[in-house]
This record gives sequence, C-alpha cells and structure tokens, in this order.
Amino acid sequence: MPSKIRAYAALTPGAPLVPFEYDPGPLSPDQVEVEIIACGICHSDLHMLSNDWGSTKWPFVPGHEGVGRIVAVGERVQGRQVGQIVGIGWYLGTCGHCASCVAGDQHLCRNSRQTIVGNHGCYADRIRLDPLWALPIPDALDPLTVGPMLCGGITVFSPFVHRNVSPTARVGVVGIGGLGHLAVMFANKWGCEVVAFSGTAGKEEAITRMGAHEVVNSRDPKAIRKQAGRIDFLLVTANVALDWDSYLRTLAPHGQMHVVGAIAEPIPVPTGRLMSGQKSLSSSPTGSPTTMAQMLDFAARHRIAAITETFPMARVNEALKHLAEGKARYRVVLTA
Amino acid sequence: MPSKIRAYAALTPGAPLVPFEYDPGPLSPDQVEVEIIACGICHSDLHMLSNDWGSTKWPFVPGHEGVGRIVAVGERVQGRQVGQIVGIGWYLGTCGHCASCVAGDQHLCRNSRQTIVGNHGCYADRIRLDPLWALPIPDALDPLTVGPMLCGGITVFSPFVHRNVSPTARVGVVGIGGLGHLAVMFANKWGCEVVAFSGTAGKEEAITRMGAHEVVNSRDPKAIRKQAGRIDFLLVTANVALDWDSYLRTLAPHGQMHVVGAIAEPIPVPTGRLMSGQKSLSSSPTGSPTTMAQMLDFAARHRIAAITETFPMARVNEALKHLAEGKARYRVVLTA
Repeated sequence: MPSKIRAYAALTPGAPLVPFEYDPGPLSPDQVEVEIIACGICHSDLHMLSNDWGSTKWPFVPGHEGVGRIVAVGERVQGRQVGQIVGIGWYLGTCGHCASCVAGDQHLCRNSRQTIVGNHGCYADRIRLDPLWALPIPDALDPLTVGPMLCGGITVFSPFVHRNVSPTARVGVVGIGGLGHLAVMFANKWGCEVVAFSGTAGKEEAITRMGAHEVVNSRDPKAIRKQAGRIDFLLVTANVALDWDSYLRTLAPHGQMHVVGAIAEPIPVPTGRLMSGQKSLSSSPTGSPTTMAQMLDFAARHRIAAITETFPMARVNEALKHLAEGKARYRVVLTA
Repeated sequence: MPSKIRAYAALTPGAPLVPFEYDPGPLSPDQVEVEIIACGICHSDLHMLSNDWGSTKWPFVPGHEGVGRIVAVGERVQGRQVGQIVGIGWYLGTCGHCASCVAGDQHLCRNSRQTIVGNHGCYADRIRLDPLWALPIPDALDPLTVGPMLCGGITVFSPFVHRNVSPTARVGVVGIGGLGHLAVMFANKWGCEVVAFSGTAGKEEAITRMGAHEVVNSRDPKAIRKQAGRIDFLLVTANVALDWDSYLRTLAPHGQMHVVGAIAEPIPVPTGRLMSGQKSLSSSPTGSPTTMAQMLDFAARHRIAAITETFPMARVNEALKHLAEGKARYRVVLTA
C-alpha cells in the first residue's frame, strides 16, 4: 500500500485545486483506512474553499460525501472489515464520552473532528477515520450515487426523524437543489403530501417525478401566499435570505419551519406569527450514525438515489464551477 | 335577575374606566351566565386599553381572567349547572366544527369569540359564554386567587404539555411577573430544575420560595452568558425586546426557546445558533379547555396559587395603574 495519500487541494485562499500529496503516518489502532470510489460535492465545500466560515486551513482538501472500500483496519477496530463499502460524511471522529455522544447524538459532539475542518477530506484516493463514522452502505445502493446521502441526504432526512414529522403531514420543501431534491424523495416515501417550492423554470416535470404532488414557483410572491396556512412541515434548503414572512405564513396550526440551509443573515421572526398557531422555527446540522443508518436503509427499501452528474476527480475544478454556477442537476459526484 | 349587566368600561381610547351598563338580551339556549366573583388583570388588558393591537372597540370592558358562579344555563346546555364555580379566560366561544376545534385545539379556532375583542369582558358583575369555556374550578382552589390561572397561568402551563417538557429538564423562566411567577411554580412541581431570570433587585428570596433553584440577574449580561449551553427549555414571559442572542446561547443541545410574551419587534434568529445544537424557537397563545382542566387539577394537587394583590373592582383604575407601573407583586385581582 502506498504510504502517501494523493489528494486535490487548494494551496491558498481562492486558488484552484491541484494534485497534493500528504503522508498520513502509521494507521491508528482505532481507525480504518478507506479507498475512495466517489465523492459528492456539497455547497459546504464551496463555503470552505471561500473560507466563508473563517475555519478553513490551507492546504485545503475538500470532500465530505465520500464513498469507498475499507482497505485497512486498526488493530483495536471492531465492527468494520477490509472490503466493506462505507460512506463518509461531515465527521471523521467524535469523542464518545461527552453527553451528546453518550446520548447517541454524536453529530452534536463538541469534541468532534470534522472531515474538512482542519483535516484533509475525500477529494483524495484515501482517507482515514473512526469506524463509527464509516457508515456501511447497503448492497442495494450504488456506490457511485450514494455519496450525496452522507451529507446532503442526512441533513434533510434527520429532521423527519427528530422533528417527528408524521406521514399524514403536508411537507413543503424550499429550494430543489442537491438537498431539496433528496428531501422531496424522502418526504414522498415518508408518506407525506409534498409541496415543492422551486425558483427554476422548467424543473416542474422533473420535480414531480421526484415525488412532489405540487410545484410552487418560488419567484412568484402570489403563488407562495396562496399556500398560506397549508404546510405542516416546511423544510428550507435554500442558503439565501427569503421572504421569510410569506414562508412563515404558509404554516398550518402546529406548523414547523425547519431551516437546514447555511443562511448568513438572521431570520426576523415576529413572535405573533408563531404564537397564533403554536408554530416553531428550528434547525439542525447533519445527523447521528444511527439516523444515517436508518436513512440508508430507508433509501435502499424505497430505491431512493440522488440524481447525479459525474466528473472524474481530475476535473474537480470544472465540477466545482458547475455547482457554483447553479447548473448542477442535482448533485455533482466526483469519481476516483 | 337584573337584565342589565353592570360593568366598567373605557368609553374612548385612553379614557379611565367608568361604570357602564349594557343589556345582554335574552340568554342564548347554548350559553351560561356567570356572576363574577373576581377577575385578574392581565397585561393584555392594558394592551387592549391602548389599542396596541388595533382590535379594540369602544366602549371597551376589559377582563379575561374571570372567576364566578353560574347563575343561569341555557336550555340546550349540558355539563354545567347553576351554582358551579367556573373560570373564564381569553375565549367566550369557539365554533366547534373547524379542524382545530375538532382536534381538541379549540384555542386555535379561527372562528372564536374572544372575551375582550369585540365583546364585553369580566370587569363586570356578570358575563355570558359558551359552557365549553366556563371551566369548572376544583374545590381546592380559592376563587379569589385562581383568576390569573385562566389566562396568565394557562399561557405558561400549556407549553409544558405541548412542547413535551420533561421533568428531567432544566427550565429557564425569563421575567418573573404575573406569568413568570406561575411558570416558576409549575416548573418546580413539574419536576424540573428551575432557573429564574429576573431584572428586579430584591425579588430573589421570593422567587426562591416560588420554586426557583437559581435566580439570575437579567440586567447583568455576564450572568446571562454564564448560563450558556445549560437550559433545555427557556420560557420567555417578558414582553419587551431582550438580548436575544445571549438567551439563545443559554440553550443546551435540543434546547427550546419558547416565547409567550407579546413582543412587538421581530426576534432576529441566526440560524447557525439553532443549527449546531438542533434547537428551536416557538410560541403559543393560551391553551385548550382540556389543557386548562389539566392545569387546574395540577394546581389543586400541588397547591399552586398565584401570588395576588387585591383591589375592589370600584378601584379598577388604581389597580390598572399599579400594574402598568410594574409594581404588581405578582398578579392583581379585582373583586366584585
């Protein structure tokens, strides 16, 4: 096995990715090594490349929607074997002893090691991580398209679990991109009535095929207002400021607006808008390993897969540009 | 029985209350008539007197925390008898056939008749209402102090029920006035650890006697920041803008901030503040008849009563001034 890991990195802020090698050292007895087969590109990779959150370190290797084959396991590792196909998401490891870890909320661990924050990510031939976060991929799922589930997918699936969304609910999904298109698929198979809010003309038929029962033109304020009082669970995957008051008005009694997009500006919430119908605004990051396993099972059972466009990893800069320009339909995947 | 109801009304915006009589006409077969024994004064009465919400009609008779004895029942009324002691809150009647009514959420009825919005309230010798909203008062509760439960009490009790607050939770209560002091009592008997945030010096001992395990000086930004990450359920009873970001920071993972104060300005919510720990912001109005009955039972079982100051109804203007000046300790009650 080669000792150096061959990756793609931005060497300085704003620079294009270039081939980059690093020596991971000896394998920790508590880690597994995974040979990357494919890796989704998430908007967070773009945010980190631009250092939008002030946490990027250079050289920077993006990639946190990896899928690969375990090629080595540390001597203390249990439950993972060489040859297993696994997925890699936002975390490489968590502490295992904080209150959140002990409660099964490892994704809320305060001592976590994040895949692309201070670590080298999955735009690489290999990566090492804690076995807990190397999620076994069910045989029924295609390694070439399952990558986007590991961050985009879990981000929109987890709320259905922890916000207790009922299959009797009418679910709105705002923004039908990488996250939103998976949300529509999940919501449909969850048993819900699905209302998709999309600002891109010409997507209606595709969004209907994903499972939406209704497609609302989100660039038409009147069309949004027509949804007033109808939506039980509104999942906002957009990452820009919206006409928040109109969206809050779409909520039915007990309605929840759940935001998973990385929105820079605070959302102004008139408490009266929440009070009259006992409504709420909430948010969440990705999800726990338990919820990720549930999502993968659910996707396998219902044959849910991201709609992907594939680029070889050597053309990573082209692929990033494609996503940044809003052209992705609906998630871009790099193949090793 | 006298045909006219003798009340206290503001005849024009901003005017003091004066004696005012109105003829309620024949008793509807679907209503009960209640002779008022006492009535709490709620901040909403002040808001309505100032027409802060644009919904006041003159002559205006305030009062929606009434307690009284049923003196007449319409011929189609079931389940209420002459002589029963009942409480009257924000609603006089609800439609019974909308989705919210059918679901047992009568307090979210869109066709409701509200006690002091377009109707004459409980600062009067009598009032008429639908039997559903004439809540039987358990014998163990004192009619002279139970009034504040009917609006202030249910407003802070209902969230414990519908937000699923666990007795294992650490509950924060912001603002220890009419609503907040009842929230502290409920939270303590609910089994929770109670952290009270109060801006009034000298109340600490009294607040501790109510059931707070810790009293935080809300005028000291450092004291609030020390609570960062600690509170599972933060109940905000204040009705003015606060340092929202500091309060959002007090939330533990899965923490909920629940606002029941009538706050005029929107709350700016940075989604990142909710996202990292899977947190939420919510609000609610009063509560359903079912929840009100649960609250009254809970209060009777645990001997919870509002701490009140009593004024005879003839001194209503003095009593209103006392509350408006922030002097109430902790709820003002008018007696007939």
